[in-house]
Amino acid sequence: MKIAKKTLGIDLGGTKILAAVVEEGKILATNRLATPQHDPVALYDAMADAAKPLLEEHPDVELVGLGSPGPLNLREGKIVFAPNIANLENAPVVKEMQARLNKIVTLENDANAAGFAEHLYGAAHNWRSSVYITVSTGIGAGLYIGNKIIHGAHGSAGEMGHMTMLPYGPLGGDSHHGTLESIAAGRAMEREARYSYHDDDMGARELFQRARDGEDKALKIIDNSARFVGIGMSNLQKVFDPEGFVIGGGISSQGEFYLSRVRTAYEHYSKGYPQAEIELAKLGTDAGVIGAASVALYPDRGL
Amino acid sequence: MKIAKKTLGIDLGGTKILAAVVEEGKILATNRLATPQHDPVALYDAMADAAKPLLEEHPDVELVGLGSPGPLNLREGKIVFAPNIANLENAPVVKEMQARLNKIVTLENDANAAGFAEHLYGAAHNWRSSVYITVSTGIGAGLYIGNKIIHGAHGSAGEMGHMTMLPYGPLGGDSHHGTLESIAAGRAMEREARYSYHDDDMGARELFQRARDGEDKALKIIDNSARFVGIGMSNLQKVFDPEGFVIGGGISSQGEFYLSRVRTAYEHYSKGYPQAEIELAKLGTDAGVIGAASVALYPDRGL
Repeated sequence: MKIAKKTLGIDLGGTKILAAVVEEGKILATNRLATPQHDPVALYDAMADAAKPLLEEHPDVELVGLGSPGPLNLREGKIVFAPNIANLENAPVVKEMQARLNKIVTLENDANAAGFAEHLYGAAHNWRSSVYITVSTGIGAGLYIGNKIIHGAHGSAGEMGHMTMLPYGPLGGDSHHGTLESIAAGRAMEREARYSYHDDDMGARELFQRARDGEDKALKIIDNSARFVGIGMSNLQKVFDPEGFVIGGGISSQGEFYLSRVRTAYEHYSKGYPQAEIELAKLGTDAGVIGAASVALYPDRGL
Repeated sequence: MKIAKKTLGIDLGGTKILAAVVEEGKILATNRLATPQHDPVALYDAMADAAKPLLEEHPDVELVGLGSPGPLNLREGKIVFAPNIANLENAPVVKEMQARLNKIVTLENDANAAGFAEHLYGAAHNWRSSVYITVSTGIGAGLYIGNKIIHGAHGSAGEMGHMTMLPYGPLGGDSHHGTLESIAAGRAMEREARYSYHDDDMGARELFQRARDGEDKALKIIDNSARFVGIGMSNLQKVFDPEGFVIGGGISSQGEFYLSRVRTAYEHYSKGYPQAEIELAKLGTDAGVIGAASVALYPDRGL
């Protein structure tokens, strides 16, 4: 059951704060401010400043959702720390925002919120259960069933990029060998490209252009990434059996060129087993703020 | 919330039917019959014959749960087919048993039911979320949160043994390379033992005895199995983040000798991430019938 109700979402990013009034997954109005650095009080004030004009325009909005980088303490409404915003250790963001806005505020991890938006209103809106996978610099995922988000016992479910795929594979940033992220994410593809082309400036964009031009070396790097993303999805299929997968993050700008390769690998490694549908994310950069607004409607969404 | 109520469980096996009256995870009375082969009507009758004396002794029992080998069609209450019982294609077992017993009958996959018993009343009873892993001839799992079982979109969640762990690993019975089952399950250990010892009669029991006696070759086979079970658990930890794992199946008879190796691998591959507790299954062979009785209390347990 989707609830049709106007709410306000705040998407807290490392450089900008985006606030929006959202109804049934549609943005009605937005407001954007720069993210104050180093000063939590200035940050709370800026989020309130971004929200207030919208709440004045839409006095029927009662609920506010906040999407934040994590790790978070959802029970206590705190940001444990934010990798790209300084001095936010153990920040009681829900209490502070409720005091400033006089509304009920619901906190959610920004990636989970974006995936929840795709689940409810975007590419996955016809599926009862879905997995939202972002392939960007790193790789992450969100798991959804009905109106629920699987948070996990420590709030760390969905860390698909940290699965070990090759016990003797490349060493990842987390000091583990052969994680999905260390093999297949954007930074991993760049590492392969720079090494094999002897070019320390090559980026993922150039790599994809070379692959589209038919260069064998570039194609092999991209095929390898897509193969392991497909294996990771096939493994998730076996244990979680979702109705569909949504692929988002930076890679989605490569469209079918990447997705078709993921699909081929997924189908190969899932052969003989039930399979899920696979779609590209539909809400683009709006997913974060739509998701933030959406979690406000589902305070008991966590599993 | 656990519901305290007496129910009847029927555990349908390939050779025997076990019925039991169960209250709060404790068996009050049991009845056992051989499983009729080849004739579905005789099978329904035998299950009813196993249940009826117990229902007469316990007239306050209103609900019946049935644990069956699968795949099952839970929505329609049917056994799609049973790998070890002939002629049970698309068998409307719920309808047939309701007609014979005049009780509401709830169907569940036998492995899911056994894990549900461990989750509610056994090794996992203090955890909100758990994963029950059976390592026997093959490897399977069940995923539980609160009073819910994750069934998946096709009812095939928890197929942990089919995850691809080594894309160029040994070929499994499902025609895929390097699945967890093909590397680490009982049959896989036997395959390794028979090959490396040049002895086509060696079984898992002898292998474990040789390992306990300190034979290097046997230890390596068992270490390798435990390592990959630990990696599989670590991967599940990353995406599902359960509070704990329960290890059951034939391997649990090896106790800490195997479990300590699994734990070492799990901790190694999860280092730096939140970790779950690991326990051996506690209910033994009773888990199936206790689980069958338990699902009757949770008709809306499916996720």
